[in-house]
Amino acid sequence: MELWQVPLLFSRLPMFPFFDLAHYVASVMALKEQRGAVEVSVQSPVACWFSAMLYCFGGSVLSSLMLAEPPAAFLAKGTNILLASSVWYLVFYCPQDIFYRCFAFLPLRLLVAGMKEVTRTWKITAGVAHADSHFKDAWLVMVAVGWARGAGGGLISNFEQLVRGVWKPETNELLKMSYPVKVTLIGAVLFTLQHSQYLPITRHNLMFLYTVFLVISKVTMMSTRSATSPFAPFEAALGHMFFGLQKTPYKVKGEGAASSNGSSVCDRSSSEQHHDGVKKRQAKKTE
Amino acid sequence: MELWQVPLLFSRLPMFPFFDLAHYVASVMALKEQRGAVEVSVQSPVACWFSAMLYCFGGSVLSSLMLAEPPAAFLAKGTNILLASSVWYLVFYCPQDIFYRCFAFLPLRLLVAGMKEVTRTWKITAGVAHADSHFKDAWLVMVAVGWARGAGGGLISNFEQLVRGVWKPETNELLKMSYPVKVTLIGAVLFTLQHSQYLPITRHNLMFLYTVFLVISKVTMMSTRSATSPFAPFEAALGHMFFGLQKTPYKVKGEGAASSNGSSVCDRSSSEQHHDGVKKRQAKKTE
Amino acid sequence: MELWQVPLLFSRLPMFPFFDLAHYVASVMALKEQRGAVEVSVQSPVACWFSAMLYCFGGSVLSSLMLAEPPAAFLAKGTNILLASSVWYLVFYCPQDIFYRCFAFLPLRLLVAGMKEVTRTWKITAGVAHADSHFKDAWLVMVAVGWARGAGGGLISNFEQLVRGVWKPETNELLKMSYPVKVTLIGAVLFTLQHSQYLPITRHNLMFLYTVFLVISKVTMMSTRSATSPFAPFEAALGHMFFGLQKTPYKVKGEGAASSNGSSVCDRSSSEQHHDGVKKRQAKKTE
Repeated sequence: MELWQVPLLFSRLPMFPFFDLAHYVASVMALKEQRGAVEVSVQSPVACWFSAMLYCFGGSVLSSLMLAEPPAAFLAKGTNILLASSVWYLVFYCPQDIFYRCFAFLPLRLLVAGMKEVTRTWKITAGVAHADSHFKDAWLVMVAVGWARGAGGGLISNFEQLVRGVWKPETNELLKMSYPVKVTLIGAVLFTLQHSQYLPITRHNLMFLYTVFLVISKVTMMSTRSATSPFAPFEAALGHMFFGLQKTPYKVKGEGAASSNGSSVCDRSSSEQHHDGVKKRQAKKTE
Repeated sequence: MELWQVPLLFSRLPMFPFFDLAHYVASVMALKEQRGAVEVSVQSPVACWFSAMLYCFGGSVLSSLMLAEPPAAFLAKGTNILLASSVWYLVFYCPQDIFYRCFAFLPLRLLVAGMKEVTRTWKITAGVAHADSHFKDAWLVMVAVGWARGAGGGLISNFEQLVRGVWKPETNELLKMSYPVKVTLIGAVLFTLQHSQYLPITRHNLMFLYTVFLVISKVTMMSTRSATSPFAPFEAALGHMFFGLQKTPYKVKGEGAASSNGSSVCDRSSSEQHHDGVKKRQAKKTE
Repeated sequence: MELWQVPLLFSRLPMFPFFDLAHYVASVMALKEQRGAVEVSVQSPVACWFSAMLYCFGGSVLSSLMLAEPPAAFLAKGTNILLASSVWYLVFYCPQDIFYRCFAFLPLRLLVAGMKEVTRTWKITAGVAHADSHFKDAWLVMVAVGWARGAGGGLISNFEQLVRGVWKPETNELLKMSYPVKVTLIGAVLFTLQHSQYLPITRHNLMFLYTVFLVISKVTMMSTRSATSPFAPFEAALGHMFFGLQKTPYKVKGEGAASSNGSSVCDRSSSEQHHDGVKKRQAKKTE
């Protein structure tokens, strides 16, 4: 084979079982690191299992809701459920927590995280194609479904938390997009444009390039422990251009969050409140 | 043409584009007047846009959910989305806030509000007919879907607020119906009866009379700034007849609200709490 | 007829109208005993009616949502809605509260509760069969839908409470399963196994035995006012075997609840807080 064939062969890569497994491991470990998740796993394994399934299959649940297909359909994929459930069991109930500890080892963690990002590309393209089969040339629906399929776990986080008895109405992934949700949205737009032949690039090449970007950015962010999204400058520029936002989005955010959260301040831990307080003070200073 | 033809011609009035536009303008302006909405528009344009779409298309989203049709379908109506989005952009991000200010000018505002009410009639009739095509002669479904289509934005307000990071569980449009929701419910019942030939009146005549009533009541209520619904006496009478309520619904409401809100009092601004306190004291007095 | 025919004839027992009626009476009375429900019935009969319908038809609403069928379909069953609505009216608005008082009389209450449990079996089997008609041999879907149909009212309780203006995110039926929800889950598993021919027992025999167990356990629990589920020992054993839980599930629960509720402690009445405090102290003691 020659080099130019790599993207084509890559685009034929089967996700099952290894990449799916990596997705489940990364998702369930992210769940375990949520505040209060371990208590829930002790208090009610059922709620914990359902929460883990929402982490693993949230994308398909959300996208089927949007297209009025059975949201319970993911339960019909027996093998995937079995895999995800065993991962959930090992992560939460493995004696001496061996499984979690071993995958918390940085190199392994980076590998798993990288493989999980690969599945994201596949989910987005699947979502876009699926939406197109329902609504002809409705590009907004394609973007929405591709986004939902790729970042579902994040977008429904409020209701996933509700399963665990946690309710944080003052924030959601639309108010404060996390990096994965942002990059998935961009990916959904790109693949929609490609699907409608507005991009002069073949599907498998775009998949290859986008995945490479996903994996590299994810791995670098994890290894450097930096939370600053590479889009920050573009966002600031766009925000300034179209929405007349000041060049200090973070302060503004602090303000915005503070005022719009006034109604449910009691839902937040004191640490968060203090953090917010700090942000507010900063905002004051900079004005 | 003669006078008796007016209702017929009126019933053939196309909603697109002018009346739809008025609906979008009125809805997005109502959103902007919500507490904390402007902060959200600064903090996260995406959440603000989605919230605005729920204000404009909430009815179709809710009714499609009730009939298990794709709730994302409204995104496929490209032109309407484009119109609504540009209205959203102008209302929230127009330099010097010109757009909002100009439509906040009372006469213009009355015109827009009146035209929005016209679209309500069209939505209700569409909802009733659509439900009938799914369930033959299920008049309760017809009422429910007609109501949802006509007053959707209000009925899902709790979840629309959640998008903006606001959560007020202690109240919803079923607990304390606003006037538009009430009048939409009555309209849904009327058009369902008409659709099942229980009313000795033709469809276009009912549409004409109902719309005239909607527009007049809305315009008078806005120009006189009065919040008292014209149905108040009937409600009191019915409540007394069927549900044995005292003739002092407001005090009772204060009581009910107070006690049933006990669980989430911390979600309300101090001003509201004080207000409620006042209501409680009044209630005490009158007993 | 001979004795061995009893199960077969029993399995042909029609639910409508008497058993359905008992289900409505038991459900609406349970609603009336909820904190703040009476205030809601005074404040807004519409919200109260909708809440009652969710109590009576929650199972069909939830299961249709899971299978992407119109959740509003239950409104099309005119006669059932009429029955349930009249029961709702009599329970909440009957002069001198005669209806409620008469059915609160223990023997009558036991009869109604027993008949309600019979409908549970029918709902579970219907749900399992219905799911099987959608997804061939997807046993997890069958269990889920059977469970949802049989215990729907409980599983959606968070959102049913929201209709009444109450929001208790810190708990749900997955975090702390009530006995009916647990026994319904077990029933759903049993009927799924039977439906997939994994159980060496005929359908009508299983229905008979399961119903007998349901009724007896329910009646004994009500008459002895004991809240301890007969499964407690099995649960403790299973929890110890598979999830390495200590043999003191209640204390553990107290702990878990306390910590995972930290975020929304302000949503609970002081009495509940105190109760929880007690539990916490007990937990401390026992460690």
